Formats: sequence, C-alpha cells, structure tokens
Amino acid sequence: MRSADLIELWRGGQRESLHCGDAVICDTRGVVEAWGRPGQIVFPRSSCKMIQALPLVESGAADAAGLTDRHLALACASHSGARMHVDAVDQWLRDLDLAEHDLRCGCHMPQDRDENRRLTCGDESPSQLHNNCSGKHAGFLTLNRHLRGGAEYVDPNHPVQQAVKAAFEDVTGEVSPGYGIDGCSAPNWSCSLAGLGRAMAAFADPPDDARGRAMRRLRDAMRTHPELVAGEGRACTILMRAASGHVAAKTGAEAVFVAILPGQGLGIALKVTDGGTRAAEAAITALLVHLGVLEANHPAVGRFLTDPIRNWRGIVTGEMRTAPGFPA
Amino acid sequence: MRSADLIELWRGGQRESLHCGDAVICDTRGVVEAWGRPGQIVFPRSSCKMIQALPLVESGAADAAGLTDRHLALACASHSGARMHVDAVDQWLRDLDLAEHDLRCGCHMPQDRDENRRLTCGDESPSQLHNNCSGKHAGFLTLNRHLRGGAEYVDPNHPVQQAVKAAFEDVTGEVSPGYGIDGCSAPNWSCSLAGLGRAMAAFADPPDDARGRAMRRLRDAMRTHPELVAGEGRACTILMRAASGHVAAKTGAEAVFVAILPGQGLGIALKVTDGGTRAAEAAITALLVHLGVLEANHPAVGRFLTDPIRNWRGIVTGEMRTAPGFPA
Repeated sequence: MRSADLIELWRGGQRESLHCGDAVICDTRGVVEAWGRPGQIVFPRSSCKMIQALPLVESGAADAAGLTDRHLALACASHSGARMHVDAVDQWLRDLDLAEHDLRCGCHMPQDRDENRRLTCGDESPSQLHNNCSGKHAGFLTLNRHLRGGAEYVDPNHPVQQAVKAAFEDVTGEVSPGYGIDGCSAPNWSCSLAGLGRAMAAFADPPDDARGRAMRRLRDAMRTHPELVAGEGRACTILMRAASGHVAAKTGAEAVFVAILPGQGLGIALKVTDGGTRAAEAAITALLVHLGVLEANHPAVGRFLTDPIRNWRGIVTGEMRTAPGFPA
Repeated sequence: MRSADLIELWRGGQRESLHCGDAVICDTRGVVEAWGRPGQIVFPRSSCKMIQALPLVESGAADAAGLTDRHLALACASHSGARMHVDAVDQWLRDLDLAEHDLRCGCHMPQDRDENRRLTCGDESPSQLHNNCSGKHAGFLTLNRHLRGGAEYVDPNHPVQQAVKAAFEDVTGEVSPGYGIDGCSAPNWSCSLAGLGRAMAAFADPPDDARGRAMRRLRDAMRTHPELVAGEGRACTILMRAASGHVAAKTGAEAVFVAILPGQGLGIALKVTDGGTRAAEAAITALLVHLGVLEANHPAVGRFLTDPIRNWRGIVTGEMRTAPGFPA
C-alpha cells in the first residue's frame, strides 16, 4: 500500500509541489474512512499530549494538586510561550513548590511574537517555561509528586513515563514498536495511524469509567481553552475556535494532526510523510470541513487551505488544493 | 515513472519522515545520472537567477553600467538582506540614478539575524532593498536602462522579461510550458529538470561565444562571492565555501537546488516534491559529495546531512539519511 496524495500547491496553472501522507477517520470500533496506509507507524509527537496526560488525571494526581481545566489544557498544549502561557506554568510550578530548574524540557525561543520580541530586543534568553511543552512537563511533575518518583522524570523507565506508556498502549490498542526521544526530551511512543485515530475516537466517545472521565475532562479542557493549547495565530487555536467548541484539535511535529469530534463520536489522525506543517494544517482543515464541523467558507478554512496565495506585493501567485480524492 | 526517495528522517530507530523528489546530473549533451523523473516539469524559482541574468551581461548592459563581479553575484543572489547586501543594492540603484521605489520586488523582513533584529527592535519596516531578490531586480533595471523599456519591468511581456524568456528557453533547450509569478513578482518560466540540469552543465562548460562568456562571468562571480549569493549561515554560501570555489550552487523556493561544477563540466538540478528546504539542502550536499567536490567529513556535510539531530537539551534524537539508492 502507498501513501495518498493529500495537498497540492499550484502556480501559473501548473502543479509545483505535492504533499503525500496518510489519514484516517475512526470511531471506537476502528477505521471508518482512510486515505493511504492506516497501518503506517507514526510518532504522534505532540499530537498525543492528551494521551500523555491521562495518568495525571486518572491517578487522582490532578485533583490532589487542585488542577483546573486551564492546567489540563496546558498539559495538552504545544503553546506559543506567550506571557499568558509562561506565567501560568510558572505559577503551577510554584504551587507545587517546584521551579523552572525542575523542568527537563530545555529552552527555546517562543513563537509568540510579543514575547519573542521582548526577549530578542531585551537581550534576554528564553527559559524552560517558554518551551512549548512546559505545560506537559508541569503535568509530568504533578504526576511525579503523586508517584513519588525521582527527579529525572523523562527517563523512559521512570514511573511517570511507564504510566504514560501503559495508557498509550491501552488507548491505541497496540503494543508500541518503541519510542523516540522528543524535542522536549520525553519519550514518544510510536503506533499505527489507525491506533492513534481509534484513541482519538475514544476521547470523542469515552467509556463510562475512570479512564473515560479523564478523557472527557482533558478533551473538554482543550475545547474550552483553545488559546492555551497553542496561541494566537496558531492552527490548533484557530481551528478549535472556528469549530465553535465542537472539536479538540492538536498538532504534532513532523506534520501530525489529530482531532476529536465528540458530537459524532469520531477521531481523526493524519501524518504528512514529508513532515510539512503547511500540508498537515491544510489536510486537517479539509477533513474538518468534510465531516461538517467547519463551514467551507469560514475564514479559518481560507487561511489554511482555500485562500489564494499572494506574494510580497499582494499579487496572487498560486493556490493550495486538496489532491483528487482527498477527501472523498 | 515515479519520483525517487531522496532523504529520510529517523528517530528512535524508526523512519519518521521521508522526502521524495527528482534529481539529475547532466553534461552539455544531456543526463548523465538521474533519480526519479528527469522529465518532471519544475519552476526553477530562484535557482535560475544566473540564467535570468544572462541578457544583462550578453547585451552589454552590465559593461555599459560598469558592473563588477560583486554586482553580478548579487544579480544571481537570494540574499539575506544583511546590511552588506542592502547597502550594495542601494548604491547600485544610485549609480543608475534610480531608487528603492523603482524596484518591483516588494518588501519582506530580512533573514539576516542582525538586520532583522535591528528592524524589529527599532520598530522599522523593511524596504524593497531587503527583499532577497533585490539584486536580481537591480539587474533587471540595469538591463531595462539599456533596452529603454517602461517602468513595469516585471510584466511578462516587457522587453526585459521577454529577453529572459528567450535566454531561458535557449539554455534549457526547451519551449517552456508557461510561467508562474514568483514571490518577487517576476515571471518564472518552467522547464524539465533535465533542461535545467543541461543549462547548469552549459554554465559549467560554456561555449566560446558571447553567451558562453556571459555564463563564465556569472558563475565565476557566484563562486568568488559566496557571501553575496546568500549570506552567513545559509546553505548556498556554506556549500560554495566548503567546495573551495569548485562549485557555484543556488537554491530556489519550493526545494529546488542547482549546482555548476566547472572542473567536471557537470550541472546538477534537483527538486524535492514537497517543497521541503531541509531535504533540498541535504540532497544537494549528498550529490556534491557523490561527485567528489565536497569531502564527506567536511563540517558543511555534517550540518546539512550527516550530523546527529539534537534537541533543546543537546540530546541526540535522530538523524537524517540519504534514502537507499540516493546517490548511487
């Protein structure tokens, strides 16, 4: 089986570039609709943060620490490192009597324009709080407090990561072929795209047990606080707002995108083979329109898929298109 | 025929992403070695700036205006908008009794870190001089002075662009299927990858006529001033320096890369199907090693291809690899 053509870029009436990949729409029983290879093994990267946060909620650690929906949205976030995000994670760590140096995610410049500019022009270095994964790591530290584990909570054999692995294999319904180390130093377990899609369907239509209640809480925290899950100008935030709360959507590095559609009991998972973010954003937009949770004429659809492409002088130079057959 | 697997990204012992594309090595008679589809039609984008500069030199316009090798390198450049580039183009326009407002390339923030920071922190807007194509456009204006054309020199029917089209079809040996409008508003004519590769071979092994002398001058200007063709930290500049003057290399948007190897009379042209720049840079690096003009253990090869990939804490998370069979 081969990957599917997903997103094309056209210029002057000629196709200039093409992104291939794989995509599935699942319900809790399995694949409902697919393009390319549902069995393709992928690293979900940040797209599975809501899975990585399951042990935090299920264990009771989140309640014991008094976490709110805002904390849970940040635990599922790849945030922009805006002051809003940085200050919230900072306070979260203080509430745990911990500090920035307890994080193990590393430092990078924030995507948020204002904060990036503040650091750049003030000759300041970013801290680990600016790391887009700092909320996930604050969640790991909260679970770690509960599990009384050691300080090196990103070690794949650490109780925190073993709990994450167990939850991940449970909800994907697969034994993972293995892990890679993510940009934030945490292990990231791989699975099939169908497994990831089924897991998203479970978040959409959760069982009536402790696991299901944790799923419901996490996905609803994401939908309620789209600005915490990513940030202004970012695809996850814009798409969740555009879907008026009907979708929890999450991107992952190397062009993974997932979505949870509670109203329909469906989950989406896709990966663009080449890791091109523009195509992952366009493809998830196309699938959300396909499933009727985004209006085709919504500005968000224009932004990520249908608006003409313009150059520095505003002249139309081309367009993005879904490839023939994607979606159906 | 299908595109070839070119560049892979691995993490935790699993292949995470894959870039496909097409690549040719040509001499002046045609394709010597190929991966994927030599007949694939591509927009060369900025990779053909040395072709777009041929009429400037051949017509005598460059000499009439007293242009030096530094001007010609800038005419072939996608520069970083560093002060060095901006000031040189500014002076060039002044020497023609023209000014920034005569350009038609549009404004964008410069890639050069220092200049970008100066503008950002000083609340200044970039000018058209910062546009990475401003040198090419100064070349167009110089040719236009000679041709006595109108002000709208980026119009596809303008004498400047018609001269460019004629040169382009001549050196590629093809009738172009058509043009697209480039990011800088100039028309960009498409051709087959083999045609682009043959054109690069002609620059490597030019005929002994006015066209050939123009080719030699332009490619040598590029090799002599790699810092003007792109800028510090950029692939073209780093690879040309690493090849110690044996190569003129030029990137184009949407992951095109070409190289001229005068010592061997060879030209290279490649396009990554998905437009991913990281893969185009890795693939041209692999081909330059393959042809013996870059040492496999040179730091530039590490930077664009063989160095382990590290995360924000310096931990090795994966690696880039050439796909099996690329290069041979």
